[in-house]
Amino acid sequence: MIRVGVVGATGYAGEELLALLLRHPKVKITSVTAKIDKVQPISVIFPKFANRIDLLCKEPEVEEIAHECDLVFLALPHTVSMEIVPALMGAGKTVIDLSADYRLKDIKQYEKFYNTVHKDVPRISTAVYGLPELYRSRIKKAKLIANPGCYPTVSILSVAPLLEAKLIDIGSIIIDAKSGVTGAGRKLAEGFLFSEINEDFKAYKINNHQHSPEINQELSNVAGTKVEVIFVPHLLPLNRGILATIYTKKAQGKTAKAAGKDSVISVYKKFYAKEPFVRIKEEGSFPRLKDVAGTNFCDIGIKEDDNSIIIVAAIDNLLKGAAGQAVQNMNIIAGLDEMTGLA
Amino acid sequence: MIRVGVVGATGYAGEELLALLLRHPKVKITSVTAKIDKVQPISVIFPKFANRIDLLCKEPEVEEIAHECDLVFLALPHTVSMEIVPALMGAGKTVIDLSADYRLKDIKQYEKFYNTVHKDVPRISTAVYGLPELYRSRIKKAKLIANPGCYPTVSILSVAPLLEAKLIDIGSIIIDAKSGVTGAGRKLAEGFLFSEINEDFKAYKINNHQHSPEINQELSNVAGTKVEVIFVPHLLPLNRGILATIYTKKAQGKTAKAAGKDSVISVYKKFYAKEPFVRIKEEGSFPRLKDVAGTNFCDIGIKEDDNSIIIVAAIDNLLKGAAGQAVQNMNIIAGLDEMTGLA
Amino acid sequence: MIRVGVVGATGYAGEELLALLLRHPKVKITSVTAKIDKVQPISVIFPKFANRIDLLCKEPEVEEIAHECDLVFLALPHTVSMEIVPALMGAGKTVIDLSADYRLKDIKQYEKFYNTVHKDVPRISTAVYGLPELYRSRIKKAKLIANPGCYPTVSILSVAPLLEAKLIDIGSIIIDAKSGVTGAGRKLAEGFLFSEINEDFKAYKINNHQHSPEINQELSNVAGTKVEVIFVPHLLPLNRGILATIYTKKAQGKTAKAAGKDSVISVYKKFYAKEPFVRIKEEGSFPRLKDVAGTNFCDIGIKEDDNSIIIVAAIDNLLKGAAGQAVQNMNIIAGLDEMTGLA
Amino acid sequence: MIRVGVVGATGYAGEELLALLLRHPKVKITSVTAKIDKVQPISVIFPKFANRIDLLCKEPEVEEIAHECDLVFLALPHTVSMEIVPALMGAGKTVIDLSADYRLKDIKQYEKFYNTVHKDVPRISTAVYGLPELYRSRIKKAKLIANPGCYPTVSILSVAPLLEAKLIDIGSIIIDAKSGVTGAGRKLAEGFLFSEINEDFKAYKINNHQHSPEINQELSNVAGTKVEVIFVPHLLPLNRGILATIYTKKAQGKTAKAAGKDSVISVYKKFYAKEPFVRIKEEGSFPRLKDVAGTNFCDIGIKEDDNSIIIVAAIDNLLKGAAGQAVQNMNIIAGLDEMTGLA
Repeated sequence: MIRVGVVGATGYAGEELLALLLRHPKVKITSVTAKIDKVQPISVIFPKFANRIDLLCKEPEVEEIAHECDLVFLALPHTVSMEIVPALMGAGKTVIDLSADYRLKDIKQYEKFYNTVHKDVPRISTAVYGLPELYRSRIKKAKLIANPGCYPTVSILSVAPLLEAKLIDIGSIIIDAKSGVTGAGRKLAEGFLFSEINEDFKAYKINNHQHSPEINQELSNVAGTKVEVIFVPHLLPLNRGILATIYTKKAQGKTAKAAGKDSVISVYKKFYAKEPFVRIKEEGSFPRLKDVAGTNFCDIGIKEDDNSIIIVAAIDNLLKGAAGQAVQNMNIIAGLDEMTGLA
Repeated sequence: MIRVGVVGATGYAGEELLALLLRHPKVKITSVTAKIDKVQPISVIFPKFANRIDLLCKEPEVEEIAHECDLVFLALPHTVSMEIVPALMGAGKTVIDLSADYRLKDIKQYEKFYNTVHKDVPRISTAVYGLPELYRSRIKKAKLIANPGCYPTVSILSVAPLLEAKLIDIGSIIIDAKSGVTGAGRKLAEGFLFSEINEDFKAYKINNHQHSPEINQELSNVAGTKVEVIFVPHLLPLNRGILATIYTKKAQGKTAKAAGKDSVISVYKKFYAKEPFVRIKEEGSFPRLKDVAGTNFCDIGIKEDDNSIIIVAAIDNLLKGAAGQAVQNMNIIAGLDEMTGLA
Repeated sequence: MIRVGVVGATGYAGEELLALLLRHPKVKITSVTAKIDKVQPISVIFPKFANRIDLLCKEPEVEEIAHECDLVFLALPHTVSMEIVPALMGAGKTVIDLSADYRLKDIKQYEKFYNTVHKDVPRISTAVYGLPELYRSRIKKAKLIANPGCYPTVSILSVAPLLEAKLIDIGSIIIDAKSGVTGAGRKLAEGFLFSEINEDFKAYKINNHQHSPEINQELSNVAGTKVEVIFVPHLLPLNRGILATIYTKKAQGKTAKAAGKDSVISVYKKFYAKEPFVRIKEEGSFPRLKDVAGTNFCDIGIKEDDNSIIIVAAIDNLLKGAAGQAVQNMNIIAGLDEMTGLA
Repeated sequence: MIRVGVVGATGYAGEELLALLLRHPKVKITSVTAKIDKVQPISVIFPKFANRIDLLCKEPEVEEIAHECDLVFLALPHTVSMEIVPALMGAGKTVIDLSADYRLKDIKQYEKFYNTVHKDVPRISTAVYGLPELYRSRIKKAKLIANPGCYPTVSILSVAPLLEAKLIDIGSIIIDAKSGVTGAGRKLAEGFLFSEINEDFKAYKINNHQHSPEINQELSNVAGTKVEVIFVPHLLPLNRGILATIYTKKAQGKTAKAAGKDSVISVYKKFYAKEPFVRIKEEGSFPRLKDVAGTNFCDIGIKEDDNSIIIVAAIDNLLKGAAGQAVQNMNIIAGLDEMTGLA
């Protein structure tokens, strides 16, 4: 059994991690911590865990955590993770960090979009971006995983095959993404009150979201050249899930056939042939949130027109977009079947 | 034109008052105030009012309000109203107070349920409880209206005819009420975040809600003897509306016929015969929130069984349960047709 | 491995059964059938099962099902189950029927409330009502389980301890129940369209619901005398869950202490001491749907006042109220740990 | 008073028309008709209209309607309107048709996208496309209004100023639109059941929606050359409203300044300077559905980047996208203030 700890257990991602880890046959949760007013059973904070786990939720103390755990998940807000990662790694622990603190290799982008000074710069380059579909072999050996953001996960998985096959005009990528509200975390702000969001819908941070540089970084890696997408997120009046509609222009003269393929769909099917959590829809079928909610799957549908390729993709933002992918990464590191506890 | 002011314009009830008053043909909004960080147009705070009103929303100053308005609506939190009422009334203004501050005649009940000391006790007895269906003639001459709470409005309208006709066992009244989320106001608390309420439902303040003494006070007045109901509110995952299901036992030996009526429905129809905003459903038909949302109506359905009478009633908590009833009271005071601006 | 079949796999309960059984470590789904227009993979009908199950969904043929399965779940509409049960049982199969066809021992009540003639009367008396908390020992040996209705499950679990301890006036029980929309099944009726239910709430079948006789039958069994409850169901604008608020009057002179207990809560705790799926809340705490949604738990909270005892209880209507309880029953029959596949 | 009739009163657009017309000070509803099983009061079909209107809803009879009305609104399904328009116009009535039957000038496009043969071809060219912001002077004199579709209304209003000012690459327009469920009408299909849509989100008719040719037709008119947009609609889990996010590439070398303007926002402000129902947001502000729901406004926000202009626009699909715009057209035809009954 892997002894695991969850730091930041009271947020939505932390709650979801607990739910997953409680069902995981190879894991024992040994530490549950968070910024809290008073120590109390995690089953009192989340009554849904009553009769299922009897650990206390305490303030995180690195030494205690290091003593109790082999692997630690950090479900902390951005800028808080980097305050605890050095000590945990110093104690020899494997860390899977769900925050953005170690995702961006370009420190300037991080400091611009997260509006802070990075306090652990040298470690950034050692962190592995935890998207198994691109970096599985590196994840296997990683000690520090920068678990991808929710929007980047669905965006990168959607566009990578097109870039690798050089099917599209690199400057043409437009990502129109729509996310459920848990994506914002358990944040106390008027804009997240029920009566504000219910029966409402809006765009926000239009082409200025902190996940843009993360998407650009990873798509540039795939393309081997600089990629800059247009990215507009929207807020859906529902709890879970991201659906992204992605518009691209075909590279001039380039067709799937020119790339030696039957169709764009076949390009995707080949790219993800061995992936347990990516499902490519047949022609004419497209994803809906309901099919991925509560799962670790990313569903991708493809519409090829004369000049454009439109991709529609969906994930559960708390699972493949956060806690589920974190557990997938843990499984890879631990040498387990990647679907353990996730099917 | 009546020159009116709204104090507390940035809450849900205040917002709703503005929407109603903007459509009211006999009213000119001359003052819009609230506790705010900086003075700005109300149409910036609520973009939906853009192109419709160009007043600034300022901090409330009694002298200024008194100068600009004939009648003032207070859409303030409980305990805040009583701090401004004395000065406004001292300046000769008519005040319609949507808070609970002047509703309870028993000061001990007020201080117990609102957990504060009342600062304007003598004025309580001069305030008129603003339920037109019971107190229209007194409202006409009132200078201070204690506008009823949302739960009490639907509860009192539902039970009053049964008590007046002495059809039920007075000790048997059980009110199971379900309210939309705007009933709680624009309150910044974790429990009111979208992801907490969406797809959830729960009871709260079980038989211990601050609206219980208000319901008991008014039903006791109708019955001419002390009435104590069991009252359990619940929180619905929707924006607007209250639906109450009310269980009563028939008084022994008492039937509608014994009371000289064809049916319980006919008792209700007679009781509300001249009321523009109470609609009694035909036998076998019952209210739903959709039919009253956005209106000032109270819809009431009746199910008579051998031993029990079950009432189902619905209102829009922001209209008949707050802002709409306040405007209805203003219309009465001003000698206007009661439906003006409300139909 | 138990080879199981699901008949009626395309409804909400069938879909939920598949989801549960796919995760169950001791089960192999060998047959998936439903009334359908054409044979196709169940993973095409429900794309969320893609990559997880590759069976075809066919029209049910008893001989084929009997050949492929040890145990068969029937997730069929009422009146349809009794057409297939005789043949399946004739073939020696264990049947867990989620419909109402074998629940009511009083054939007249069945025929009145389900508006049909029963076609398999003799078998009714052999069926075991599948509520493990009351009938576990009989379930162990059963060949035909009448899996309880969703409203009855939460109602019976809520009231049984009070009746057994004789704490309440038997004629005083009022059950005000609120259910999510999946409780109605995948029914094509205008009243179940999104725009009709969203932002709406209403009561229906007021004290006239087909689950009333089922509740009365089982509570009468517990009380050892005839019990008739008042039961009013309501429709919540959400997918999953039932919350019931239950009002009872204390038996005169009867208190928990008189019954030799510290408190009503302790009566419940003792009654359900060994039950894996019933959680009694501490004093002052009450259930919410979120805590039971997606689980097989029934959460129960208790409010004792001078003259009344109010119970608030919650289940997931598709799990403890249907598919989850069916799997719990299967576990009992198969001699497995009762929580297998359900935790 | 204008005597008006509503044909197709039982659909969502018809219901909305009734609500608007009941509040309209210059209108008397004299006829309410629909395909129905039996004649009954419209206030029984829609209990929310109880105490407000006492007309019977009957099957439409042209002679009767022509006798009772000066102006007739048709809130009928596509292909049904054209069966009744000739007779109504033959009787000299002014007709405002909310269906698509007279919108498309290119008969082939109509027949392809609506999958039917047009039965009243000659009259198409006489119909005026009822978008006041483009065709006010023609609407004034029209006898037959083809009231625009909901998606086309928001799309055309969003893009027209860019095309007129020649600021964008005509081939670059991508419209990612998200609509509430009432947009689909009161249609009995599994896909519109509450449990299917609640907590779900999806794209549909990807770049193949029947509103595409309507958008293309009108934008081509504005541009003076053929425009073909990419248009992808999505279904939001809420009742009312469309929000569209529109991506365009700036015309090479073309800037707002080059067009003699300060900014793209100023281009919009000038274009809509006299429009009562179009509100242009200030820089950095963008529409949300809540601000337009229940109103006839179209709110438009603009984001100008180096190479792209992104427009976010919102309307209420049942008002500016259907019934509200129909009343606006009636006001224009009748020579009334355009906001009468709509503010």
